[in-house]
Amino acid sequence: MKVLTRHIIIASFYATTIAVGTAKPQEIIKIGVSVPSADHGWTGGIDFFAQKTKERIESLHKNIQIIVKTATGPSDQVSGLQELVATQQINALVILPYESGPLTDPVRKVKEKRVFVTVVDRALSDNSIHDLYVAGDNPGMGKIAAQYLIDRLRGQGNIVVLRGLPTVIDDQRFDTFMELIKNTQIRVLDSKYANWKRDDGFKVMQDFLTRFPKIDAVWAQDDDIALGVLEALQKTKREKELFVVGGGGMKEMVKRVLDRDALVPIDIVYSPSMIANAIELTALHYTAKLPINGTYILDSPLITPENAAQYYFPDSPF
Amino acid sequence: MKVLTRHIIIASFYATTIAVGTAKPQEIIKIGVSVPSADHGWTGGIDFFAQKTKERIESLHKNIQIIVKTATGPSDQVSGLQELVATQQINALVILPYESGPLTDPVRKVKEKRVFVTVVDRALSDNSIHDLYVAGDNPGMGKIAAQYLIDRLRGQGNIVVLRGLPTVIDDQRFDTFMELIKNTQIRVLDSKYANWKRDDGFKVMQDFLTRFPKIDAVWAQDDDIALGVLEALQKTKREKELFVVGGGGMKEMVKRVLDRDALVPIDIVYSPSMIANAIELTALHYTAKLPINGTYILDSPLITPENAAQYYFPDSPF
Repeated sequence: MKVLTRHIIIASFYATTIAVGTAKPQEIIKIGVSVPSADHGWTGGIDFFAQKTKERIESLHKNIQIIVKTATGPSDQVSGLQELVATQQINALVILPYESGPLTDPVRKVKEKRVFVTVVDRALSDNSIHDLYVAGDNPGMGKIAAQYLIDRLRGQGNIVVLRGLPTVIDDQRFDTFMELIKNTQIRVLDSKYANWKRDDGFKVMQDFLTRFPKIDAVWAQDDDIALGVLEALQKTKREKELFVVGGGGMKEMVKRVLDRDALVPIDIVYSPSMIANAIELTALHYTAKLPINGTYILDSPLITPENAAQYYFPDSPF
Repeated sequence: MKVLTRHIIIASFYATTIAVGTAKPQEIIKIGVSVPSADHGWTGGIDFFAQKTKERIESLHKNIQIIVKTATGPSDQVSGLQELVATQQINALVILPYESGPLTDPVRKVKEKRVFVTVVDRALSDNSIHDLYVAGDNPGMGKIAAQYLIDRLRGQGNIVVLRGLPTVIDDQRFDTFMELIKNTQIRVLDSKYANWKRDDGFKVMQDFLTRFPKIDAVWAQDDDIALGVLEALQKTKREKELFVVGGGGMKEMVKRVLDRDALVPIDIVYSPSMIANAIELTALHYTAKLPINGTYILDSPLITPENAAQYYFPDSPF
């Protein structure tokens, strides 16, 4: 299927080359974009960039139609997919899966209908389904965070870890982090899912603070979660004993890094603009008639007080 | 530098969002494209796709100007770079380096002039220079070839290997291949560079045929080289004793796979259209104001008699 789509495309590239000068009515290509609704800051950024990209591409290419559907959870996203395929009859799907497990079989079924599939960020549990995969450098985020913590704590201390949602990319961050930590004297007191949400970050951190009298650092691996952690620390007045490492490049957190806030010494870029790259490449598959199948991993560099000014955008949606 | 460019871009994304409705003269963005001249079939494909992509992008975006320069060798490519930077004052460079070593420092110097750098295919010896890297799956090509040879030869026999040019991607193909072969009873009689050229493939294979009375298979890892190998086999009438594994998806080789030619049982996709993906993404950095920094690896799937029809394009330039 993957192969077939690609080669219809290559064939039409050459067909187009040959047919230069003859005008014929263009077929409308429908691209469905399925993303989580703005349940936290990062997904707010995703929705913002999806909408902007739809407007940009539709204004440039009259034969491309982009339908953006937001989902409040995995089952809502599955129903949305059914509608995109059955009612809208999409040619291509760009999906940021709410969770990896529950979306894997539904997306496989979409693929079986000969729809081109681009998966963004959270990945599916079976990586043979997508035609194109676009994400930030999740193993890199785990690695950068671990290296910073090891260096800063001089290889020893007590830390707690807040995870995201049960997804492939959360495992990539966590596994890479734990692999580097295991050869040190740093003890992970506990790790719990906080679902990339501020409220859950607050609740999980409150629990950690109740149970552990001495915590040297928190790896929240996400800036929405980190906001909740900071709130819990403020409430319990334990802000002086530790520091927090998030991730994402959220403007509030980058500002703290820039201001040399001792609680938030660094951040790691993971921009929601990646959804725009994914939609643009998928559209290019049709407008430029190019094979685009593959894996596109965007850089996730470290933000320090020294370079934070370059990453701080007060007018950004995230 | 990398960081700065990215964030000027993000900043201007938001600026554009805010400035909707106000027309102002657009700055001309110049993208230099530096590629090897058509010294074999695959580079012929590269030049074809670079030219087509220039035409497509310039017709869509009046403020983007693309200057394609072909080079006959590493030193010619270095002079071309100097002209692109000094005379043309390019904003971005898309380069397929002739060789990795000799181009690394010259491209570093281009980067130091705050030019956005996209490297395609052959890579530089220092992977911290590029902003974006686009290539096929070179380790995958070595892996697929090794797995096929091991399976087909049932883990034992004598083979010869023809390499490309001394580049990072040639090492990736070769090292992955050798890693898998070393645990078998397959003996690599010799390996030599054939520079991804048909003539060199012919000469190297003639030498192998003179020196080795019994060869069970040839890993040529490239279809241009494989054409030279086939010519040498024909001349010495040793076509019946072995088979040849190339790579690239050249139409002549895909046709042989399709026709179940015993000499060419498989091929592996490595399409020169990747230069189009690289130029398109680089242009997108300016037209959509997106951060695009990262690594984009296009799939390199196996071509067998069963799926070859989907990969065969008689009108293709490659």
